[in-house]
Amino acid sequence: MNKRKRIIIAALLFTAGLARAQTPADKVDPFIGTTDFGTTHPGALCPNGMMAVVPFNVMGSDTNVYDKDARWWSTPYEYHNEFFTGFAHGALSGVGCPEMGSLLTMATSGPLTVDYREYGTAYRDERATPGYYSVRLDKYGILAEAAATARTSAERYTFPAGKGHILLNLGEGLTNESGAAVRRVSATEIEGMKLLGTFCYNPQKVFPVYFVLRVTKTPSSSGYWKKQRPMTGVEAEWTPDNGRYKLYTEYGRELAGDDVGYWFTFDDLRAGEQVEVRMGISYVSTENARRNLDAEQPAGTSFDAIRGAARTRWNDDLSRIRVEDGTAEQQTVFYTALYHALIHPNLLSDVNGEYPLMEHSGEVGVTDGERYTVFSLWDTYRNVHQLLTLVYPERQLDMVRSMIGMYEEWGWMPKWELYGRETFTMEGDPAIPVIVDMWMKGLRDFDVATAYEAFRKSATTPGAQNRLRPDIDPYVERGYIPLGFYAKDLAGDTSVSHALEYYVADHALSLLADSLGHGDDARLFRDRSLGYRHYYDREFGTLRPINDDGTFLEPFDPKAGENFTAAPGFHEGSAWNYTFFVPHDVEGLAKLMGGRRKFVDKLQMVFDEGLYDPANEPDIAYAYLFSRFPGEEWRTQREVRRLLDTCFTTAADGIPGNDDTGTMSAWAVFSMMGFYPDCPGEPYYTLTAPVFDRVEIATERGPLVIEAERPADGAGYIGRMTLGGRPLGKYRLSHDELLGGGRLKFELKNDK
Amino acid sequence: MNKRKRIIIAALLFTAGLARAQTPADKVDPFIGTTDFGTTHPGALCPNGMMAVVPFNVMGSDTNVYDKDARWWSTPYEYHNEFFTGFAHGALSGVGCPEMGSLLTMATSGPLTVDYREYGTAYRDERATPGYYSVRLDKYGILAEAAATARTSAERYTFPAGKGHILLNLGEGLTNESGAAVRRVSATEIEGMKLLGTFCYNPQKVFPVYFVLRVTKTPSSSGYWKKQRPMTGVEAEWTPDNGRYKLYTEYGRELAGDDVGYWFTFDDLRAGEQVEVRMGISYVSTENARRNLDAEQPAGTSFDAIRGAARTRWNDDLSRIRVEDGTAEQQTVFYTALYHALIHPNLLSDVNGEYPLMEHSGEVGVTDGERYTVFSLWDTYRNVHQLLTLVYPERQLDMVRSMIGMYEEWGWMPKWELYGRETFTMEGDPAIPVIVDMWMKGLRDFDVATAYEAFRKSATTPGAQNRLRPDIDPYVERGYIPLGFYAKDLAGDTSVSHALEYYVADHALSLLADSLGHGDDARLFRDRSLGYRHYYDREFGTLRPINDDGTFLEPFDPKAGENFTAAPGFHEGSAWNYTFFVPHDVEGLAKLMGGRRKFVDKLQMVFDEGLYDPANEPDIAYAYLFSRFPGEEWRTQREVRRLLDTCFTTAADGIPGNDDTGTMSAWAVFSMMGFYPDCPGEPYYTLTAPVFDRVEIATERGPLVIEAERPADGAGYIGRMTLGGRPLGKYRLSHDELLGGGRLKFELKNDK
Repeated sequence: MNKRKRIIIAALLFTAGLARAQTPADKVDPFIGTTDFGTTHPGALCPNGMMAVVPFNVMGSDTNVYDKDARWWSTPYEYHNEFFTGFAHGALSGVGCPEMGSLLTMATSGPLTVDYREYGTAYRDERATPGYYSVRLDKYGILAEAAATARTSAERYTFPAGKGHILLNLGEGLTNESGAAVRRVSATEIEGMKLLGTFCYNPQKVFPVYFVLRVTKTPSSSGYWKKQRPMTGVEAEWTPDNGRYKLYTEYGRELAGDDVGYWFTFDDLRAGEQVEVRMGISYVSTENARRNLDAEQPAGTSFDAIRGAARTRWNDDLSRIRVEDGTAEQQTVFYTALYHALIHPNLLSDVNGEYPLMEHSGEVGVTDGERYTVFSLWDTYRNVHQLLTLVYPERQLDMVRSMIGMYEEWGWMPKWELYGRETFTMEGDPAIPVIVDMWMKGLRDFDVATAYEAFRKSATTPGAQNRLRPDIDPYVERGYIPLGFYAKDLAGDTSVSHALEYYVADHALSLLADSLGHGDDARLFRDRSLGYRHYYDREFGTLRPINDDGTFLEPFDPKAGENFTAAPGFHEGSAWNYTFFVPHDVEGLAKLMGGRRKFVDKLQMVFDEGLYDPANEPDIAYAYLFSRFPGEEWRTQREVRRLLDTCFTTAADGIPGNDDTGTMSAWAVFSMMGFYPDCPGEPYYTLTAPVFDRVEIATERGPLVIEAERPADGAGYIGRMTLGGRPLGKYRLSHDELLGGGRLKFELKNDK
Repeated sequence: MNKRKRIIIAALLFTAGLARAQTPADKVDPFIGTTDFGTTHPGALCPNGMMAVVPFNVMGSDTNVYDKDARWWSTPYEYHNEFFTGFAHGALSGVGCPEMGSLLTMATSGPLTVDYREYGTAYRDERATPGYYSVRLDKYGILAEAAATARTSAERYTFPAGKGHILLNLGEGLTNESGAAVRRVSATEIEGMKLLGTFCYNPQKVFPVYFVLRVTKTPSSSGYWKKQRPMTGVEAEWTPDNGRYKLYTEYGRELAGDDVGYWFTFDDLRAGEQVEVRMGISYVSTENARRNLDAEQPAGTSFDAIRGAARTRWNDDLSRIRVEDGTAEQQTVFYTALYHALIHPNLLSDVNGEYPLMEHSGEVGVTDGERYTVFSLWDTYRNVHQLLTLVYPERQLDMVRSMIGMYEEWGWMPKWELYGRETFTMEGDPAIPVIVDMWMKGLRDFDVATAYEAFRKSATTPGAQNRLRPDIDPYVERGYIPLGFYAKDLAGDTSVSHALEYYVADHALSLLADSLGHGDDARLFRDRSLGYRHYYDREFGTLRPINDDGTFLEPFDPKAGENFTAAPGFHEGSAWNYTFFVPHDVEGLAKLMGGRRKFVDKLQMVFDEGLYDPANEPDIAYAYLFSRFPGEEWRTQREVRRLLDTCFTTAADGIPGNDDTGTMSAWAVFSMMGFYPDCPGEPYYTLTAPVFDRVEIATERGPLVIEAERPADGAGYIGRMTLGGRPLGKYRLSHDELLGGGRLKFELKNDK
């Protein structure tokens, strides 16, 4: 069983590594999250890079437990599958819908076959470390290795003696979209495009990826393939390849089709001979794919140099946070979470600054900085951008400039942007808290006037022309959204979720309005943000959907909607998962509930009775809400530690549910360091007991050090605290306070 | 019934035209040959032009008697079908395998549908005249008109009021190859490519056609479509378009796939509003397709101007031969045959001289003149090139320069060349007689040294490396090809046909060798050309296949192989269809048969007993062979006239079998004028009684006039003749004699 071997090897490496002074990259295990719907992958990539080279093992075999064609599946790799069909180029990490994961390269030996059902193989000895992945292909005796730069890939295949092949399969992939074109440029270079998109039930949201692929050895022969459409009767007699893959052996111009590919054959390989594949991609043009490849892999760049440079980039990024002590497993969980939080958003612009304009059907813009894409903002506004603001502010700035650029190009801020297309996945107006949050923390080198203009537009444009808030009319008129307004089908209604997101966004917007001196706006949006109260139902003690006539939904079950089942009013969750999701007015909510005690007891009950869902975002900050009430902070510390211990592990299922482009991971990163931004838009962190005894974070204002003295392993409750050497008596600190203090010290204890 | 209407309209037009002085173009009926496997089409094109705009009516309906998907069918149009699905751009005329006939445009009104099974329509009021075609589409109330320049098309659609659409379907076509790419350039322009090829069971002989398409009115909306590959299970839930045509409404970059297209929608057309479609094509690149369009349709060129220019070009070409008297039907047969003989070979080079190099996978060459393609040489070497040499020598020169260019690029002369690919369809070495024939007639402005080098190569290269004569070894060693050498399966053996072609070619080559002073070569090839004698079997009095051991094939039926059934030794014919095919040694063959009388009686028997096949090439010159024997010339005159009367008519089935890129038609053109080149390579014509009382042919040496005095209609036998005013006593004249004489006069009589 290759899986067991992988684990043993990983353990050995780990032990060996500890002995010789590990770098942060050594502590990353990219296999974490690669099963149980974590939907991460062990592929090679650079921090926030355009390129990802991902082993593809979710198609072509009946042995697949998790098969992209047989079930809902949204990642090119699954930990337990055992049928390898190549490397995908360009992939998403931690998302909930299948997309990208195409441009599949494969190496084989022996007779040439281009059908992935035939050329797929069992494999063993997987290794993955930041920027590098390798695997041995059983059927072929080939060692396959992959590395990446920001926008390009390198693969190295070590062949047995005899005949070998490199394949590029453009017909298959994780995406449900099809159609590709490929053109031979020379004996060792091809270029082309493939259509991607339709992410999350968006048939119109398609976009092209362009590529240039080079092999490092001149092939003995090469050519295209295309699956022939099935013909019948007399027509079928015209071709011996009817309904099968046809090899085009004498053709050298463009080939286009649904299921096309290209092969390179090497007739007389020496035993151990290495052939490499280099690929540049672009979302603008094949010319730019070539520019990216030429710029990031100048002539003579070796595979090992690329691998080494990727590792260096990861260590540069990961070592901005240095953690000490904790167990080896905790360090692995931490650095792997940080690694996962640094994958998306990722580069969209090419080395020449060009990128596809937002929702302009591929028209091209140019940026001086970097254009980013893959903004899964309903997820990431909660903590990923807070992490970036704190530790990677230069990147956060380019991301926010990208978002403002999208507004300038398209007229609206992004919600779930994917390669220049707005997929309108999930709900709310999440660009507002992302940008307000950084503004309030003093990261301000962006065009705030345009951002404010964009926010006002989505917060005030009435009717159906409001692309971000399609149900703004009742939200503004009544202060809430009734059932059935946005989705006529009650089973698909998510009205309460929509409104809750708008409240959070409007609260953040009121902070920005205040900061910019727009007092009237500030009052307006603050008032709106309190509309959540309409939904509070004393009968059940939860938020509850409201009918169009103002009455509450009947019948009502606050548990309905658990485990991603559908429940009227709530999106991907139950009333319990949403009821405490008023981070900007926790005290007000507590008052509605009958006071602090009732609030705390009810929240505790959610945890105790399994009503909390650690696998999704609405209740992601619940554990921190206890700390809003003096004397209850120990509950935060206890629940956070419990969640860390049970949901975040070094196992392949060590992420609770989709990582959501790093959101689950960012929760772990903050939580393990001892503080968490529990109200997006508010420049505040709530403290908890750190996992590590020492954490040092490089920030723009200098190092932030967090230290913990603990009497015994596992001591998980905060006793005394000091900040900048002075005693600290509160558990919620502003960004300025924390960074100004410079050194936050905890004395931990065993009991609350 | 639209067909009846069409005939009536044609008749009315004809009558009206006669009254107002008809041009030759008025006398062309492009519907002739459009059923019964004539495989011509009524589309719009220019003489020997790259572009053909052909109504497409052979798919999508159960009402089709002749359906490309249900049966063997090799033309985009059939006279009796009634389901119109658009115009194909780029098509072949008179061939026996399905190819090209793609880039399908269609106009519809009402709701948009992109499935040809749904958007196809009944039609009426077809009109076709050189360079123009029009039809009324029943379902839509649209008048569709088409015209062409050499490399571009123009269509004009007259719409009813309301919503209308222009469609470009790249998924379907006559070709069995698939795969296309299309890109939006602007609101009114798209460009792209489609793969063609696999002509006549050649899965590797594919080539791309590139296009640029413009509409003359800015559409209200536009977009791509692509048929979605069928998915099952959970995967199928990702798209509402699963297995169906998906409309891409928000995408503007490249789209590629097996079954793709593009639509333009016009929301508010006025009644009678016209929208035009202009397309340029190229076999080099989309850039060249655009160059062709810009050059041949400068800004502001109207549809009527294009239509008029095409007609002028046809009249210029057709009026190089002026026939007088004869019936209207005979004039129509004649000018339609001349029209059909001026379709192929056709332009391959773009306006900038670029063309795909022969068998170089689309690498590009540049010519100063014109590069031609579609060389169906097994057919056309018999008479089409003789007609071109006589009447269109400048074009014949460019065609032969093209053939020599192919040799220089590929290493071999063409056999059945199609857009830079050699398809090796049929057999022989037909480039030799084509070029020798013109050389012997004094048309010599080409590189004869290189041509001779090429001819010697195919005539002498031994073994399998001889691409044109794969069975040259026994041919050289034994003087014949035994059964089973080239094709192991006797049912597919065509050894006698192969050898007979080589004899004809080597005879021609001996003439050229003589002319060039290569006496030894001349003797060698002349000797070889007489090897046919090995095949003569006294038992049956026919040529007969020879076994490898030198014995004749047993059992043997000289009638086997009739009607395109398979018979060992013979390709597409019986022993009777091939036995007299020794045009270079008719006298020698007669001797073998026991003398002139036996020869003549046997040949007469072939005609009398229905052993003659007028639908194919091997016996195409049989009727002229009588005239090799003094006193028997009347048989030529009788059989030629019988064949003209029965096989060449103004009906839709008025061509016997495939027109074979004009070969059947060229037979009619020569025969109706009164002379025929009965031995390719020999600069001689055999005379027969002309159909017309006066024929004037423009030649490089001035007008050649043929006159006939006939005592009564139908007088079909030659009495006295004069040439240049002097009595003429022989029935076979050299090219020099005929043109030197300038005026050939026949006195015809009613009886032999």
